[in-house]
Amino acid sequence: MTETKLLTIAELATHVAGRLLGDGSIHVHSVADLATAGPGDIAYVDGEKLIAAALSSQASCLIVPPEFVESFKQQIVEREFGPALIEVPKPKLAFALIAARLHPQKRREPFVHPSAVIAESADVELTVFVGPHVAIGERSRIGAGTQIEAGVLVGDRVNVGHDCVLHPGVVLYDDVTIGDRVILHAGVCIGADGFGYVRDDIAHHKFPQRGTVLIEDDVELGAHTCVDRAALGQTRIGRGTKIDNLVHVGHNCDIGERVVIAAQTGISGSVTIEDDVVIGGQVGFGDHIRVLSGAVIGSKAGVLPGKIVRPGVWWGIPIQPLDEYKRLNAHVGRLPQMREELKELRKRLEELEKENRNS
Amino acid sequence: MTETKLLTIAELATHVAGRLLGDGSIHVHSVADLATAGPGDIAYVDGEKLIAAALSSQASCLIVPPEFVESFKQQIVEREFGPALIEVPKPKLAFALIAARLHPQKRREPFVHPSAVIAESADVELTVFVGPHVAIGERSRIGAGTQIEAGVLVGDRVNVGHDCVLHPGVVLYDDVTIGDRVILHAGVCIGADGFGYVRDDIAHHKFPQRGTVLIEDDVELGAHTCVDRAALGQTRIGRGTKIDNLVHVGHNCDIGERVVIAAQTGISGSVTIEDDVVIGGQVGFGDHIRVLSGAVIGSKAGVLPGKIVRPGVWWGIPIQPLDEYKRLNAHVGRLPQMREELKELRKRLEELEKENRNS
Amino acid sequence: MTETKLLTIAELATHVAGRLLGDGSIHVHSVADLATAGPGDIAYVDGEKLIAAALSSQASCLIVPPEFVESFKQQIVEREFGPALIEVPKPKLAFALIAARLHPQKRREPFVHPSAVIAESADVELTVFVGPHVAIGERSRIGAGTQIEAGVLVGDRVNVGHDCVLHPGVVLYDDVTIGDRVILHAGVCIGADGFGYVRDDIAHHKFPQRGTVLIEDDVELGAHTCVDRAALGQTRIGRGTKIDNLVHVGHNCDIGERVVIAAQTGISGSVTIEDDVVIGGQVGFGDHIRVLSGAVIGSKAGVLPGKIVRPGVWWGIPIQPLDEYKRLNAHVGRLPQMREELKELRKRLEELEKENRNS
Repeated sequence: MTETKLLTIAELATHVAGRLLGDGSIHVHSVADLATAGPGDIAYVDGEKLIAAALSSQASCLIVPPEFVESFKQQIVEREFGPALIEVPKPKLAFALIAARLHPQKRREPFVHPSAVIAESADVELTVFVGPHVAIGERSRIGAGTQIEAGVLVGDRVNVGHDCVLHPGVVLYDDVTIGDRVILHAGVCIGADGFGYVRDDIAHHKFPQRGTVLIEDDVELGAHTCVDRAALGQTRIGRGTKIDNLVHVGHNCDIGERVVIAAQTGISGSVTIEDDVVIGGQVGFGDHIRVLSGAVIGSKAGVLPGKIVRPGVWWGIPIQPLDEYKRLNAHVGRLPQMREELKELRKRLEELEKENRNS
Repeated sequence: MTETKLLTIAELATHVAGRLLGDGSIHVHSVADLATAGPGDIAYVDGEKLIAAALSSQASCLIVPPEFVESFKQQIVEREFGPALIEVPKPKLAFALIAARLHPQKRREPFVHPSAVIAESADVELTVFVGPHVAIGERSRIGAGTQIEAGVLVGDRVNVGHDCVLHPGVVLYDDVTIGDRVILHAGVCIGADGFGYVRDDIAHHKFPQRGTVLIEDDVELGAHTCVDRAALGQTRIGRGTKIDNLVHVGHNCDIGERVVIAAQTGISGSVTIEDDVVIGGQVGFGDHIRVLSGAVIGSKAGVLPGKIVRPGVWWGIPIQPLDEYKRLNAHVGRLPQMREELKELRKRLEELEKENRNS
Repeated sequence: MTETKLLTIAELATHVAGRLLGDGSIHVHSVADLATAGPGDIAYVDGEKLIAAALSSQASCLIVPPEFVESFKQQIVEREFGPALIEVPKPKLAFALIAARLHPQKRREPFVHPSAVIAESADVELTVFVGPHVAIGERSRIGAGTQIEAGVLVGDRVNVGHDCVLHPGVVLYDDVTIGDRVILHAGVCIGADGFGYVRDDIAHHKFPQRGTVLIEDDVELGAHTCVDRAALGQTRIGRGTKIDNLVHVGHNCDIGERVVIAAQTGISGSVTIEDDVVIGGQVGFGDHIRVLSGAVIGSKAGVLPGKIVRPGVWWGIPIQPLDEYKRLNAHVGRLPQMREELKELRKRLEELEKENRNS
């Protein structure tokens, strides 16, 4: 899915505004981890316990934080050879940026596979890649440079921006809007009906699910994640938000920008999550919750319907501030001991009572 | 997915057996929420805190409960114009019924896309819609008026009733039976092998998974929900039951009628859930459980294998009656205070002991 | 998906090295459960409470443990007819082995559906079955006897071994390797990008996800289970491991051999699970955990990042030894009573204090 470029270490150092130490003219072709890196590879050192691994690494270049530079320099002088260094304050970030430079997402050549079924009224830009067994419905639009991989099924009046990647088997229901540079992994499902019924004596009657879904720019959704359409109005995933596999986003949710949500979390209807919130895996949200910017919710937590979650770190079912949760958990752990103490006090009390009675 | 009709307010009032107040000859074309409704829209008021929004709504018609009619009438008289009212005891239910009338599920014209692969021995009614990239296997039957959307994959000897909607990418394994008016959302998977193995010293041997699955009439299953085939016998989802996204139903489960199950709940093998049970999201069931009619199980609860869950509201891991759960939770919250009290009593006891010793 | 053979009871007894009692020449064609079994069926008895059902079963043959043989023999003599018996120490295991013999996985005839899109550079063995709407990418290899069912989407440079079954809608990303006799159920997704980003002030930058996935021989993965590709290096599912539906396996996980994982469990990045571990449903794992061989983790448990889980049975969030968990749970249940005791002690203490003051 990616291709590989050949760049000099000097070019890479410039790319991340890092200080170069060593021979900048050497070419690098791949990112790697310290253990398996060889000539032509670049790796990063992020934390003291990796220094040993770094010193024995065969990488051509290492990205290091300022505090490690001295120990490396000395070693390199002693060995009279060794990797070039790029010094930056945040090596992992520089590594990610360099990886994106060395291994850009492979740009598929513009192409429409003859097995693809594209409605005549659809508007597919010339630079789009359309794989085999794709279906694109009436009046849908696909922006320039977007890749529609095999088996993607796009409904009617769907809008997909430019430079997106829709991996195999993605399903977009009718009337859904996808921004630019969005990545949807295999099996992502956008726009299925929300889960809403009104019960009478006989049956559940479907509440109308006539709204839509907006996925903003630079969003990435993991495999099999489902974002339901709104009942009325719109379900939104904000710009730059990243969601892992098998996550459920209910109807009318409003997820802000740069939110991170780990795998298998479930969000009921009409939940608002503000910008920059971080949510662990397998978290459950009741409906009509508002999570304020600055909140971090630990994995497996459960949030009760209607709650407002303030900034801070939260955990537990139902959620509590993390410190509180830990404190109570410690207390629970001491329950057997408390019980013993209680017994002991009772005994001593009985002793005293006896004494008093006798005196 | 739906189309839109134009109906008079009088017709809609009749449809829900409501009392009409105002001009019944006005035409309505769409349901909407109070905030965004405009001329031609109908909205509903369900709860006191919506009255202000209702009074400023631009909807042509509002569905209101009897207790609000007076305040509306007065307002409308004062303003000399305003929405017509339909008075019913249950506005949300009436709204759902009116939505179904105004926006019936769009009936696809009978059609078979040329890319569809349908076995010669399959029996597909003339009024069926079959989208692109569909596959239908040997001796399978599809009932009248059913819509098989793009990329649906139907195995051999599958029976699908009439007026169903199979959304894109649904997979039906061999020998599965689907009733009438069933809605299966994208990626629903019916009839995969149940999870059963017998271990010996060397390996896990597959327990036979030769049973089947019956999905009864009027069931709706959310995106990516999986219902496994029985080992021997049948897995059943009863008539009118509604299941949300990403739910797992294990082999040999017997789910009754009008059951509601929210997203990401997991049900192990051989669980029986009786009619009308309500189950929250992310609930987990061990195997061989029986949930009796009248039970409500809160989100994220966990039910131990073999349990019988009686009528009432349940929560927690493992489940307890909700009241009990709340009570114990409150006790846990008071543990730090209890610990302090214990310390204090110990101190006072020691004081007394000292006094007694001295006296 | 399976076919059916006709075999004599004697042949079946030999197949499982069991002792035959009764007429071995009778033919059997199907496995069944005790309740529904009829002539030509074979069922098994595994546990005392099934004896009554067994005695009234119409099966032609019963697989029974040694301890039940006597009671059966007597009954059969009394009735002067009845099922033949196969005596083995582990009836359920024998039943599974006999089922595999009577109902072998139906071997599809070698075939490539004309709608399948197979890259010219792909290497597909002659004995492979390829269903409709399949796509197989550049330089991918499919081993002998493998069945690629409808709608399976295989990327570039993918390696699939021999005698595998890829059920409808499976997605294999580029560069993934699948062993021999692997069964992937509908919607399984192998090789989607791991969930890794590096945050700076402005956005989340994608950490490179350039590694791959190895699924070893005899693995079975349930519907919609997702196994992410490694960031760098490899995600592995070891030989003979069985995973249920809707499970998430994060990047760089290393799952050993013969591991069992129930539905909806989620495993974060870089988790190592050693051979023969057993994991319940809806369990959550933080990253960088190591689960040692011999560990059993109960359903809905949560394991904190970085933990080493030793042999034994574990439960709770966070996990504790099961006995400890039960003990603490019991203590929590007794909290209201403890509170009462504390009150009572306080009262008696005050009484004593009053007495002392008065004396």
